[in-house]
Amino acid sequence: MDDVKSLQKKLSIDGELLIKQITELGEIGADSDVGGRTRIALTDDEKKGRDLIVKWMNELVLNIEVDEIGNIFGTLPSINGNCHENVLMMGSHIDTVQNAGALDGCYGVLAGLSVVRAYREAGILPLRPITVAAFTNEEGVRYQPDMMGSLVYVGGMPVQEALNVIGTDGTRLGDELARIGYAGHLKVGAIIPQEYVELHIEQGPILEKESIEIGAVENLQGISWQQIIIKGKANHAGTTPTEMRHDAGFAAALVNTFLRELALETKTTLATFGSVKFYPNLINVIPRMVEFTVDLRDPDESKLKNAENKLNNFLKLLEEQEGVQVEQKQLARFEPVHFDEKIVQLIERSAKKLGFSYRRMTSGAGHDAQMIARIAPTAMIFVPSKGGVSHNPREFTEPKQLINGANVLLEVVQNLV
Amino acid sequence: MDDVKSLQKKLSIDGELLIKQITELGEIGADSDVGGRTRIALTDDEKKGRDLIVKWMNELVLNIEVDEIGNIFGTLPSINGNCHENVLMMGSHIDTVQNAGALDGCYGVLAGLSVVRAYREAGILPLRPITVAAFTNEEGVRYQPDMMGSLVYVGGMPVQEALNVIGTDGTRLGDELARIGYAGHLKVGAIIPQEYVELHIEQGPILEKESIEIGAVENLQGISWQQIIIKGKANHAGTTPTEMRHDAGFAAALVNTFLRELALETKTTLATFGSVKFYPNLINVIPRMVEFTVDLRDPDESKLKNAENKLNNFLKLLEEQEGVQVEQKQLARFEPVHFDEKIVQLIERSAKKLGFSYRRMTSGAGHDAQMIARIAPTAMIFVPSKGGVSHNPREFTEPKQLINGANVLLEVVQNLV
Repeated sequence: MDDVKSLQKKLSIDGELLIKQITELGEIGADSDVGGRTRIALTDDEKKGRDLIVKWMNELVLNIEVDEIGNIFGTLPSINGNCHENVLMMGSHIDTVQNAGALDGCYGVLAGLSVVRAYREAGILPLRPITVAAFTNEEGVRYQPDMMGSLVYVGGMPVQEALNVIGTDGTRLGDELARIGYAGHLKVGAIIPQEYVELHIEQGPILEKESIEIGAVENLQGISWQQIIIKGKANHAGTTPTEMRHDAGFAAALVNTFLRELALETKTTLATFGSVKFYPNLINVIPRMVEFTVDLRDPDESKLKNAENKLNNFLKLLEEQEGVQVEQKQLARFEPVHFDEKIVQLIERSAKKLGFSYRRMTSGAGHDAQMIARIAPTAMIFVPSKGGVSHNPREFTEPKQLINGANVLLEVVQNLV
Repeated sequence: MDDVKSLQKKLSIDGELLIKQITELGEIGADSDVGGRTRIALTDDEKKGRDLIVKWMNELVLNIEVDEIGNIFGTLPSINGNCHENVLMMGSHIDTVQNAGALDGCYGVLAGLSVVRAYREAGILPLRPITVAAFTNEEGVRYQPDMMGSLVYVGGMPVQEALNVIGTDGTRLGDELARIGYAGHLKVGAIIPQEYVELHIEQGPILEKESIEIGAVENLQGISWQQIIIKGKANHAGTTPTEMRHDAGFAAALVNTFLRELALETKTTLATFGSVKFYPNLINVIPRMVEFTVDLRDPDESKLKNAENKLNNFLKLLEEQEGVQVEQKQLARFEPVHFDEKIVQLIERSAKKLGFSYRRMTSGAGHDAQMIARIAPTAMIFVPSKGGVSHNPREFTEPKQLINGANVLLEVVQNLV
């Protein structure tokens, strides 16, 4: 045991190769002219990305398994040849949105491989198996919901239901999965990890703004998505006195400014009025009806509920004040996810040991980690995102920072296995 | 002379026939199922409407002339056989928007015919010629701008330019005018009226709300139409702290609420935020760009300018406060039109004499009268609109109120000629 621990100290990330692989994977599905790449889940281009990951897993002589929903697992067996017990799992996803950056998801999978490579290059095996996972359809562009592969894996959605999902292009998910050759036989949830650690770019501006190198992600915001419809009364813009108007557009604007006040007041709640449609949407007609969406997030469930309640009360007030009718529809609702305190502390210690600045933080975006957290102690490591930009070809993190993140991941893994 | 005046006292409107003709004209271009009718300028259905008007003018043995832009004039000659000098003109239009009511425009033309009919039925001729005009393309649905026939008539747009206008369906106005047989030979502006009086439904809620039977329209609001583009920064709704946002949608909402404050503060200015488009318009992305329109109206030019200036100042403030860029484009700008005080007073006296309640008012909508006011003393008479609804099959005015309006018009005409 002491021997193994001393051997592990020699492990190191091949940073150059990690960056090279990120670049190479990023070339698959490249969008001509505009930059960026598009590898939407279970398309031909995403199959090419999967094939490349499998090829690299093979080069590392990993035990490769694909489950019924297409999640790919590459496992470095433990020193005693075990692949399925007391597994330490790392991972993320390699599917992308339309015209994406090269880092979202891919970084976590390839950094996982770089950790395993460190073991292979040192010629040693860990005391426990180490698995790198690439989960199916994290982005949810073609098939809803997003984070589907990890959701199905933890039992949050039956496999058959997921396979029967019809995409925005009319295709059936199960058919496309079979077509690209990734309808595997491993039962979902067959490998229950003992811990799960996901390395990811922040996709937000905080680390960059504060010049901090590593984020120890302690929780993931709860999300409340609503569609709200306000019905007022269409009338002529030139003939209807102001006090006689029931302007659905004005009422919607009041909701928008209310949400800003709510966010500033609570400090932790984020509120976004991101999409809107006016009816009839004419320059000289008072809007009869307005449909819009509200995105509320908070890492604390009671605060998220409080924000929802305040919004509900405001909408009731609005009905009276503006003489409008309000309809609400919940589009999505996720409670905040609290990651494992021990792993978060370990991330902090690892960053500190390697000399990196670090801070605890909340993930504002959704990740596979939030699903895996239902069945295993989980945490995430963030590295800075330039300008907080993601889901865009301008998504960027300095190579040095990407390698730093992989080194923290390796340190965490070494401490766990 | 005294004889003629005493004869005129016997004149009276055939209210039943007026209502019958409104109904009959309203059946042309009827929209199946949904109610309403569609007679867009220079279409086959509008030709049928024109043919019916011409047929009714012929039944009244009027001198019918069509000018180069298709305006139709039916003239009751003066007692000395004159048709073109010192003309008293009444009129409006018979083209409609998509799925319109039966009254907008048609009422003014048919009430004009009912006034002329009163003379014919009494078997007398006026001292001056009386012309009923139906102006081409008031609604401007297929060919821009609206109020085109009267605009061209007063020299506000060259005939050839109007004939060359290409419609939303790719057709040339002049070709369609010739096709339906209404490319006339009378020079535009050939008949300069000595006065012009237009009877119209209010298309607003004021008369109904105040239970007043007749509106003596003293002016017509100035209009300022703008398209405004606000450019902010797209960012992830879950990862971007509130104070780091440059939310174009939030900035647009602030403009909307500012406009309401402006309207309430000034009392006379009307301000409408009627149409909007968000980019990218997604639930979880802070809007990068928002395009919207502003419709400002005021019967006083200095107040309208003041409203425009206040909006400009607010937009400058917004640029600093929200870190956004604002672009403005003027889409339309009309100064307020002041109608002829003597005719307005005559309308008030006429209403009073006939025992109707009345008030002075402002027209919030545009009308052919605003164009003719450039070349002749002009005023308008309004009757109530149920709920202020217009440009809609639910447009409605009680038959009794329509007949009241025609009687006031007759009284005004008798006093003028």
